[in-house]
Amino acid sequence: MDTAQALRALQERLGPRGYLPGQETDERYLVDIKGTRGAMPLAVLRPASTQEVSGALALCHAAGIPVVTQGGRTGLVQSHVPCEGEIVLSLERMNAIENIDSDAAMATVQSGVVLQALQERLDAEGLMFPLDLGARGSCTVGGNISTNAGGNRVIRYGMTRDLVVGLEAVLADGTVLDGLKPLVKNNTGVDLKQLFIGSEGILGVVTRAVLRLVPKPGERTVALCALGSFGQVRGLLRQARQRLGGELTAFEVMWDSYFSRAVRIAGKAAPLPAGQPYYALIEASSAGAGGAASLEDLLQQVLEDGTVSDAVIAKSGAENEALWKLRDISVEVTRSLMPAVPFDVSLPIPAMEAFVPAFEAAVRTIDPRCDTVVYGHLGDGNLHLGVHQPPDRPETFQAIQEAVYGLVGEYGGSISAEHGIGVSKREFLPHSRSREEIAAMHALKNALDPKHLLNRGRVLEHRAAP
Amino acid sequence: MDTAQALRALQERLGPRGYLPGQETDERYLVDIKGTRGAMPLAVLRPASTQEVSGALALCHAAGIPVVTQGGRTGLVQSHVPCEGEIVLSLERMNAIENIDSDAAMATVQSGVVLQALQERLDAEGLMFPLDLGARGSCTVGGNISTNAGGNRVIRYGMTRDLVVGLEAVLADGTVLDGLKPLVKNNTGVDLKQLFIGSEGILGVVTRAVLRLVPKPGERTVALCALGSFGQVRGLLRQARQRLGGELTAFEVMWDSYFSRAVRIAGKAAPLPAGQPYYALIEASSAGAGGAASLEDLLQQVLEDGTVSDAVIAKSGAENEALWKLRDISVEVTRSLMPAVPFDVSLPIPAMEAFVPAFEAAVRTIDPRCDTVVYGHLGDGNLHLGVHQPPDRPETFQAIQEAVYGLVGEYGGSISAEHGIGVSKREFLPHSRSREEIAAMHALKNALDPKHLLNRGRVLEHRAAP
Repeated sequence: MDTAQALRALQERLGPRGYLPGQETDERYLVDIKGTRGAMPLAVLRPASTQEVSGALALCHAAGIPVVTQGGRTGLVQSHVPCEGEIVLSLERMNAIENIDSDAAMATVQSGVVLQALQERLDAEGLMFPLDLGARGSCTVGGNISTNAGGNRVIRYGMTRDLVVGLEAVLADGTVLDGLKPLVKNNTGVDLKQLFIGSEGILGVVTRAVLRLVPKPGERTVALCALGSFGQVRGLLRQARQRLGGELTAFEVMWDSYFSRAVRIAGKAAPLPAGQPYYALIEASSAGAGGAASLEDLLQQVLEDGTVSDAVIAKSGAENEALWKLRDISVEVTRSLMPAVPFDVSLPIPAMEAFVPAFEAAVRTIDPRCDTVVYGHLGDGNLHLGVHQPPDRPETFQAIQEAVYGLVGEYGGSISAEHGIGVSKREFLPHSRSREEIAAMHALKNALDPKHLLNRGRVLEHRAAP
Repeated sequence: MDTAQALRALQERLGPRGYLPGQETDERYLVDIKGTRGAMPLAVLRPASTQEVSGALALCHAAGIPVVTQGGRTGLVQSHVPCEGEIVLSLERMNAIENIDSDAAMATVQSGVVLQALQERLDAEGLMFPLDLGARGSCTVGGNISTNAGGNRVIRYGMTRDLVVGLEAVLADGTVLDGLKPLVKNNTGVDLKQLFIGSEGILGVVTRAVLRLVPKPGERTVALCALGSFGQVRGLLRQARQRLGGELTAFEVMWDSYFSRAVRIAGKAAPLPAGQPYYALIEASSAGAGGAASLEDLLQQVLEDGTVSDAVIAKSGAENEALWKLRDISVEVTRSLMPAVPFDVSLPIPAMEAFVPAFEAAVRTIDPRCDTVVYGHLGDGNLHLGVHQPPDRPETFQAIQEAVYGLVGEYGGSISAEHGIGVSKREFLPHSRSREEIAAMHALKNALDPKHLLNRGRVLEHRAAP
């Protein structure tokens, strides 16, 4: 089958709502939120069912047409931007919430459902899908799964991977792997669904999933602490885990480089004076009442034993929001460094203290004007770094990336905590993955997508098929 | 390289402690706890490091010698019992606890460490590795990982998979995949470690792991409830999740077929009269104090609204143990049906009510003397079933298995919740996995172990290499 034959067959099979000719492609299928613009695709496919996804992929496979999959298109690493000669496969019409089982605390959904739509539907039933992130209004559950999204509650509920109970995926040749069972315990050979979680669509297309839910938490209380040393930050984390147990739902740390800027940008009286080395934001959530009391006990303890030099606890929902605000304006804080190079990395917690000054020194060696901010989900080992790039020296963009990713590798970290690799971080993957690991990924690609058609060139360099 | 050359090279490389000639093989490397006895292996290898595992596997690969991996040899599906012509690879000398990081709440261990040894070491530091199961005194962490062990606390902490942060594994050709990073967030391509968790050693040998820890819980309280209908059991589970949140650490259900026998066998006054259709055992664990109060609130509510017809709450550690005793004597209860055919299956919770009478009817159709017991970790969808096999009709063993696994498949369940497939359940795998899924597992086997040397014939039928 040649390309023209395949396109005609796809058009016939998917109909006018499911097949958009390439030359009529709407702008939204071409760009990402950073403004990167891709090539005009051969067509945009919008299948309405798993069966249609399977049929469409089988045709593309027969004709050897590469396919790029799109969810909510909120990714930051250029994965979904079409390359020359690709077909776009959008899951946007597969957006049904098929079933909610409140006894088992599970939901079965199609992969195109928007995260916020799911959250709102569950909220009405007293349940919660614990995943939450800034892109909630656009990102889809399928995209969350393909990228193993993290977000704000990882310390308590884990990454998306921890929330997927069952999964249906379609391989490059159209084979449907139906692993959609609502079973927490299912030790029957290789757990195939894991292959499709976090692998950014290079091994298959996620079509439906069974998700783990939790009861909607009752009380939620936030405190902000100032600390004099990183050893004290670690001590506070240890004590917070100990005293709050399953009630600890956030442990965010802001270095003063971030906090001072955030206070200025927020433009209100700072809840604690800036100028201390570290600030930790702790959130406790409890099933019923009682979360506030546990958090108060913790604060009393850490103020008494000197772990924390100053602390404030929110007394109302509005005060909760005001404290979170300092962390939530991170986009504005990073923007204040514009032009800025942002990083989303993980580090072993014991390595963080030494990493941060090494990072600051490394970028200032490139140019002394390279200002930095540091903050992150410390309880998860995840740091966000921002580096000012001197506007008169555009070549420093690459130098800053090389320096930072190199350092992250040296300190045993990950060059991508949450955002993934896609196209834009592919060249830096060897800083986090060994030659042997990358070879194993290629072996899996060859085994499951031997023609290298799915999300070609994302994560892994495109090599000739074996 | 031929077999004799490889054996000489292995002996030289591993030395007298690391290489035991086949003819001197100790009985313990040959049998399982059900008494199955395997073939005499070519040799028993006991490497002391990842490097030695890698070197040994490279030699076996060069000579085409199949290898069976052994941890604590507590498996129930014949995986570790040697087959004709195999070499035994025992991880027993790799039993070091390499690092405990109490801030990050992670431990780095070698795969041969015995679970109980790890538990005891952590207990002394105020930490807990949440995995716990009856075989704790013999089973190894590497075996727990390879089989994705479940156990008693899955409803709160998940399966072993959820507790593995980093993993080092060795492929059939000796390639070491070093994914030993202590990073919760690490979205850098395919998460290779997932391939080795729960796949029963057919894709690689687990050598070291970074494990997630939690603070040792404070208070622990147990209650027992009697219920009149399965709808009420589901209602109780829903309310327990809602009110106890992260404090709910067990939700076990006993059908009366089990409970009546358990009370007789325990030989003490029953905490609640037998004869009700269902009994639920609920455990709440809290970081500090407060767990008992939440559980008392729950019981008051469910007694008032009629969900539960009778209930008793433990007032002391001894009373906790007495209630757990009824669940913990499951081995004796199943033994009272001897000869018995035991099952470890999962079912969607909404399917359980109809499944159980269908199961009872199906086995009584085979022989009206087929008595049954039913109990399990209901909160996880995991049921344990026991069926009396009439001793004068040994052929019913196979018929009972076929009937039960067939029914489990029909009801959308899993033929193995926890124990795995190994050799003994291999023929029944198609009841839980589709043809396409099994083909995908073979594709992975071909990709990562092209000579089919690792745990050959376990999980998947041995096919000629492609």
